[in-house]
Amino acid sequence: MADRQKKLWGGRFHQQTDLLVEGFTSSLDFDRRLYKYDIEGSIAHARMLAKQKIIKKVEERAIIAGLKAIEAEIEEGKFVFSPGDEDIHMAIEKALTERIGEAGRKLHTARSRNDQISLDMRLYTRAEIDRIIELVRKLKAALLGRAKKELGVVMPGYTHLQKAQPVLLSHWLLAFWEMFDRDEQRLEDAYKRVNVMPLGAAALAGTGLPIDRWYVAGLLHFPRLAENSMDAVSDRDFVAEFLFVLSVLMMHLSRFCEDLIIFSTDEFGYVEIADSFTTGSSIMPQKKNPDVAELIRAKTGRVYGDLLSLLTILKGLPMTYNRDLQEDKEPLFDAVDTVASSLVVFTAMLEKISFKTERMASGAASGFSTATDIAEYLVRKGVPFRESHGIVGRIVAFCIKEKKSFTDLTLEDFLKFYNGFDDGVFQVLTVEQSVQARTQIGGTAEEAVRRRIKEIEGR
Amino acid sequence: MADRQKKLWGGRFHQQTDLLVEGFTSSLDFDRRLYKYDIEGSIAHARMLAKQKIIKKVEERAIIAGLKAIEAEIEEGKFVFSPGDEDIHMAIEKALTERIGEAGRKLHTARSRNDQISLDMRLYTRAEIDRIIELVRKLKAALLGRAKKELGVVMPGYTHLQKAQPVLLSHWLLAFWEMFDRDEQRLEDAYKRVNVMPLGAAALAGTGLPIDRWYVAGLLHFPRLAENSMDAVSDRDFVAEFLFVLSVLMMHLSRFCEDLIIFSTDEFGYVEIADSFTTGSSIMPQKKNPDVAELIRAKTGRVYGDLLSLLTILKGLPMTYNRDLQEDKEPLFDAVDTVASSLVVFTAMLEKISFKTERMASGAASGFSTATDIAEYLVRKGVPFRESHGIVGRIVAFCIKEKKSFTDLTLEDFLKFYNGFDDGVFQVLTVEQSVQARTQIGGTAEEAVRRRIKEIEGR
Amino acid sequence: MADRQKKLWGGRFHQQTDLLVEGFTSSLDFDRRLYKYDIEGSIAHARMLAKQKIIKKVEERAIIAGLKAIEAEIEEGKFVFSPGDEDIHMAIEKALTERIGEAGRKLHTARSRNDQISLDMRLYTRAEIDRIIELVRKLKAALLGRAKKELGVVMPGYTHLQKAQPVLLSHWLLAFWEMFDRDEQRLEDAYKRVNVMPLGAAALAGTGLPIDRWYVAGLLHFPRLAENSMDAVSDRDFVAEFLFVLSVLMMHLSRFCEDLIIFSTDEFGYVEIADSFTTGSSIMPQKKNPDVAELIRAKTGRVYGDLLSLLTILKGLPMTYNRDLQEDKEPLFDAVDTVASSLVVFTAMLEKISFKTERMASGAASGFSTATDIAEYLVRKGVPFRESHGIVGRIVAFCIKEKKSFTDLTLEDFLKFYNGFDDGVFQVLTVEQSVQARTQIGGTAEEAVRRRIKEIEGR
Amino acid sequence: MADRQKKLWGGRFHQQTDLLVEGFTSSLDFDRRLYKYDIEGSIAHARMLAKQKIIKKVEERAIIAGLKAIEAEIEEGKFVFSPGDEDIHMAIEKALTERIGEAGRKLHTARSRNDQISLDMRLYTRAEIDRIIELVRKLKAALLGRAKKELGVVMPGYTHLQKAQPVLLSHWLLAFWEMFDRDEQRLEDAYKRVNVMPLGAAALAGTGLPIDRWYVAGLLHFPRLAENSMDAVSDRDFVAEFLFVLSVLMMHLSRFCEDLIIFSTDEFGYVEIADSFTTGSSIMPQKKNPDVAELIRAKTGRVYGDLLSLLTILKGLPMTYNRDLQEDKEPLFDAVDTVASSLVVFTAMLEKISFKTERMASGAASGFSTATDIAEYLVRKGVPFRESHGIVGRIVAFCIKEKKSFTDLTLEDFLKFYNGFDDGVFQVLTVEQSVQARTQIGGTAEEAVRRRIKEIEGR
Repeated sequence: MADRQKKLWGGRFHQQTDLLVEGFTSSLDFDRRLYKYDIEGSIAHARMLAKQKIIKKVEERAIIAGLKAIEAEIEEGKFVFSPGDEDIHMAIEKALTERIGEAGRKLHTARSRNDQISLDMRLYTRAEIDRIIELVRKLKAALLGRAKKELGVVMPGYTHLQKAQPVLLSHWLLAFWEMFDRDEQRLEDAYKRVNVMPLGAAALAGTGLPIDRWYVAGLLHFPRLAENSMDAVSDRDFVAEFLFVLSVLMMHLSRFCEDLIIFSTDEFGYVEIADSFTTGSSIMPQKKNPDVAELIRAKTGRVYGDLLSLLTILKGLPMTYNRDLQEDKEPLFDAVDTVASSLVVFTAMLEKISFKTERMASGAASGFSTATDIAEYLVRKGVPFRESHGIVGRIVAFCIKEKKSFTDLTLEDFLKFYNGFDDGVFQVLTVEQSVQARTQIGGTAEEAVRRRIKEIEGR
Repeated sequence: MADRQKKLWGGRFHQQTDLLVEGFTSSLDFDRRLYKYDIEGSIAHARMLAKQKIIKKVEERAIIAGLKAIEAEIEEGKFVFSPGDEDIHMAIEKALTERIGEAGRKLHTARSRNDQISLDMRLYTRAEIDRIIELVRKLKAALLGRAKKELGVVMPGYTHLQKAQPVLLSHWLLAFWEMFDRDEQRLEDAYKRVNVMPLGAAALAGTGLPIDRWYVAGLLHFPRLAENSMDAVSDRDFVAEFLFVLSVLMMHLSRFCEDLIIFSTDEFGYVEIADSFTTGSSIMPQKKNPDVAELIRAKTGRVYGDLLSLLTILKGLPMTYNRDLQEDKEPLFDAVDTVASSLVVFTAMLEKISFKTERMASGAASGFSTATDIAEYLVRKGVPFRESHGIVGRIVAFCIKEKKSFTDLTLEDFLKFYNGFDDGVFQVLTVEQSVQARTQIGGTAEEAVRRRIKEIEGR
Repeated sequence: MADRQKKLWGGRFHQQTDLLVEGFTSSLDFDRRLYKYDIEGSIAHARMLAKQKIIKKVEERAIIAGLKAIEAEIEEGKFVFSPGDEDIHMAIEKALTERIGEAGRKLHTARSRNDQISLDMRLYTRAEIDRIIELVRKLKAALLGRAKKELGVVMPGYTHLQKAQPVLLSHWLLAFWEMFDRDEQRLEDAYKRVNVMPLGAAALAGTGLPIDRWYVAGLLHFPRLAENSMDAVSDRDFVAEFLFVLSVLMMHLSRFCEDLIIFSTDEFGYVEIADSFTTGSSIMPQKKNPDVAELIRAKTGRVYGDLLSLLTILKGLPMTYNRDLQEDKEPLFDAVDTVASSLVVFTAMLEKISFKTERMASGAASGFSTATDIAEYLVRKGVPFRESHGIVGRIVAFCIKEKKSFTDLTLEDFLKFYNGFDDGVFQVLTVEQSVQARTQIGGTAEEAVRRRIKEIEGR
Repeated sequence: MADRQKKLWGGRFHQQTDLLVEGFTSSLDFDRRLYKYDIEGSIAHARMLAKQKIIKKVEERAIIAGLKAIEAEIEEGKFVFSPGDEDIHMAIEKALTERIGEAGRKLHTARSRNDQISLDMRLYTRAEIDRIIELVRKLKAALLGRAKKELGVVMPGYTHLQKAQPVLLSHWLLAFWEMFDRDEQRLEDAYKRVNVMPLGAAALAGTGLPIDRWYVAGLLHFPRLAENSMDAVSDRDFVAEFLFVLSVLMMHLSRFCEDLIIFSTDEFGYVEIADSFTTGSSIMPQKKNPDVAELIRAKTGRVYGDLLSLLTILKGLPMTYNRDLQEDKEPLFDAVDTVASSLVVFTAMLEKISFKTERMASGAASGFSTATDIAEYLVRKGVPFRESHGIVGRIVAFCIKEKKSFTDLTLEDFLKFYNGFDDGVFQVLTVEQSVQARTQIGGTAEEAVRRRIKEIEGR
């Protein structure tokens, strides 16, 4: 889009005004993407006009045949868009009339471009929500599959990017599953508000002609009608909501990518991204740059920008339709493309990631990551939590001083710090015990994770 | 909040480091607002610990009594917050232990501030969604009431801020009703994702103690549990979603305000905002500045900023809890306060607005706002729409040249432009006819508007 | 860009991974726009390598000739970009080596794509700042010319969109001149920080080869070198700053457009935008939609979105180069195109605007817009300002009650409100007197406005 | 601010309308922060009025004494702000008149709150820019000091968060110095546009009274006057520009924090943040959470939000003053407080950071980080760069297979890959040689870094 405008406006300050304005106001370069939905909507509209006897059966047939022929031509790349056509609606209607004559001039009866573009946008958004949901489901399936496959692998869990407690790799993977599951829910909720039929609102006030809006809705599978014509032509909430849902989705991907980028460093060394998803240097073979993850992380900013653009456009806009609304399309298209391609590539990358389970295990064992487990052991013996904290803190300090780890300690050692210790303490201080103890719903024990996997599969 | 920081940091570059950092990292100044929810959550947690025999019944009773006493003190303004307390959790737990001794030190068993703050935020957000829904309903009721009261009043409908077709004032009012109705739906949808119980996630991995998460959920009326402990402590989607819904709500208010500001100008003169909602100049009595509407319009930017702040914070954040998440609170509180006060004041203002119906009516009649009606009349006679457009265009040009309006024309005049005209044309060219013809669902005819009002009332 | 990605990613989930990733990570589709700057930079680099005897004279000549041939081919549209080329740098270097053999493989000596892309971006940004400054100057010249032409025309000045005091139309026009003048200053300031030569930073650490950075800087007219190689490859401040300056510029255009849209309404009727800059309805000849102004207003949101995208990308990015930085280009290109075309079209529109001076004059005269002037007259007689306010307020109330305007009052009338009135009051209560009294620097009197015009012209 | 509004609006839906609106529109709660500047501006205004004989000398003296007394009371916390006062201007003027009588009622002569608030905001912003510049200089000084102290320490340089080439720790520190130096330049540039005197613009049109704007400017040390009264009261560019500069500053801090957070992990282990700037867990002594760095990183989002709020408010705002502009203050105050406290705490933290130089050195030596150096050595022998890349790539592959590092290879080994190797290769393949070779301007050699330090100190 940038390049086009450059060509058009770059230095041509003196070009003919009409051309200048024509280029500036035309949306054909980007809204042609809606051709399929525009034609689908027009066919439904024509069927209704005929059913209501506003046009004749023979006119209906001519219109439908003409529109289908145009659609075929566009898909085959044979249709010639003229720069003079303002938008996709005019381009198609003009071509239709050139082909079928007078009947073409009746298609626009009882409708305006104001309700027509709202219909096109809703049909498009509906289809794209479906596509994104499909891609999210694929990602979720990949996560679930991987979580099942890696069951049993222990890794360090982090808070503040500092090792905190050991967790299962599968648990970490399923944490992302939960995020994308919420995204799917939000997509479904957004869909409800897209799935509303605006045609019949005409310019802003409705029409005096005897149309049948429910019939059109039925043909196009809309369960609801827009209930106020003024709102119908000025509403772009559904675009903003979709852009928000996509923004959160990208935010989730960005968090996943951040973990992968950090885990792929030489220093962490937990993850190896397949060569095909990295770029290297021809010199430094150790250097596998996680480019795909970095790009997805960055593209989050892009989708945020798309959301903000639309919110800014809508703020303080007077009723009803204003030309400002034409600027809703490019942010939407850009966000959809960005998210769809990011999901596809991310899912493919995820499937080819190797986890370096030994590094993870040794990472999980270092530090005193089971300190909380010893404290909880003391709690079970009746020591108040805040006190048990103190006891374990002193044990850790002792270990550091003596360069020991918990597993090096004897019962005598433990008894120096609190006289209630018994052999049970040796049951809780290994990484494996720590993980396996967390069997509560949502916990990281293999038992709990396995249960969650079953629930998900059982849906 | 600004003032506090000023005091703290202003010139004290040389102050003791500890104090410096303490002030910078403390959240007590703003998260104290959560005290009620923090106590509510702690009571539920204590009940569960007792039920599970992790603490004793007598300890449970002491904890609950202590917490209730603290709550009462806070509400009476008697509780002394110490600047040294990092946050509301520590402030309350410390006070509790000072009062009830050892039992207080057991309260934090099997929980971490990471899951505790998530619980507090969810309880708070749930309550605020309820409050905002209540305020939106009041605004919708005010709109509906006004729409009923003004039924029959005609005003010009605008596209591009240019007069387009006459509509009912009630139709314009109900267009906003539809917007706020969508806001309510979005609030309900967001609520579902807030209404999830995170406690039990502990620091990030769950706990090894035999807690009962469903019991806590029941006490606090949560229908769902967070299903992954790592996700539970790092998820702030629900805050972002609420902020987005509030952003769209403000955007709707800003559009309403824009119309009111323009309609209040001397030049339009359709609306008179009550004196109490404007400010004047002591000199120019004609000058009634629509300050409230302007402020609400501006505050939209503020809520957008709150949304963007959080989205920026969350982008690329590694798993799981990071201190960055502390910065989720102030944008949320600010947005809630802004939206709640805007709704209250806007609704009150709306109730005191006078519509200058004569100005509206004469505005609706000027121009050739029924041109579309004549075109539709011709369509009914079989003239293709694009052709009928042309005919009416020529009639308008004639009228302008002859300084006439449609109602000045005779049948002979009409017949000069198209020989199919008949007396029926006089049925369609008045403003009243134009409005009343649009009886389709969502149209502006009184019949259609009345029907919509009944549907709404019938819910 | 959207369309490309659609084609690539749409449904091809199963396509070969390499192609998938290649398409996702390639920047060639948009960075090819930088070809000219890439070649310019490479020529300077080659000259330096030869001067420093790192390559031979004959190699330098071959490289330069090869690069110039490639540039010519690109400009003629003959150059074939292969989708397999990652970016514009690789596409050009590969083509060069195919043409000139071994010498081509020496071009990349002592440089990395990390410093190369920074150079390209700086050369591009420098050129675009120059272009935008040129367009801003044209707009300022148009404003100045119009202000001179309309000198003497009085219009109502507004606060809160309510008539406040009469001003000169030229004064209103020059208020925008001041805004765009600040934009120009900001562009100049931003330019200084773009105008820094990064080449020689190599990947991140500089190079061990005996390059001469000042020589390259001289060839490319850079007055400064980047002083730290790590900063040089990770810095995108200059892009963010340019995007901010463009955002403010668009904000100014949006405010201008808002005034024009409101002034073009039937109700205000102060402005008539030329037909070629509006769209109409084939039916309603009174309907001239100010589409161009609406689109420019909306495009402000787009540029804000571009700014936010980049700021989001840069937040929290680790040192030094990360692939995230590839996403700096599309927002920049989009913003530049949007602003350039908006400036061109807006300036052309401005030149064809007609001001309806009679409507303006009668608008200025209505209300009691000279009330302040009477108050100031009393101040000159020694009445404290807050008191004089009160007196005039009572006079206005009297006029409203008696349906009179100030000019209908006699001296006796005035004396009833304050006994110090004299004939001098009749010198101050007309619109013309009101305007002409404001002769202070920055005031709206013709004398002051004329003075300002001279100052501007005298620069 | 949140809490205030909560108190005011929370449940008081039924409170008296006047109070409701009063609370909603009042800015006193936040603009009281401007009291000092409001009084400073009023004193200058009063002096000018007296000099111009618009008020009497004795009145001037009374006004100035009164204002100074009020200022003293405010600073001592004795001044009682009444909730009924709309804003700081009214609060002060009312108090003044209560004290000194009639003279107080003359202070507002020839001025309006519209130009008065612009003056206050400019005085405030000017002072805050000065303060932020001071804080940035302190940070730069700390960086420079540290860079000098650590000279000679080698660390790995990263691209894509992957080890790339060794650099000096001081070079990494000075990269941030460059960023903050640009911030300082941007602050200086923004200052120029703040430093413009608006008083005299009055409501929007200037005044008819014989004021002397240059005299006021002189008293308040403004080198320029606002040249158009309409622009003067509607311009908030200077606030937006300051917010942008602060946003970039925070972005730089966020990047620094990101590096510190990553370098503080157990896995990297390059940095130890002093205990006083971290929080720990009472259990896990290895756990030092880099809270301060995390909070600063997050607060970047907050300042971005402030910037966006204002840009949204200003978009499409009609001329001249609109009440929307009242909403410029809180984002500005919040951003200033956030940035100032972040700079203070960050600088203090930086001074107490320990660098673990051994870990850094061994990190720098691992991998094949000097591969580029061998390639450059070959270039010096006449091998084309792309070819030398290939040779070194094969050597690296051999080393990996044989589990050797470059320093383990003999000349015979090297000769197997290219017959032009000689003993010189051993001069280039150590980390120290690699760093020391990069002596070019901006390079990482100690010589180059030392030179840069001298330049900076020589300014």
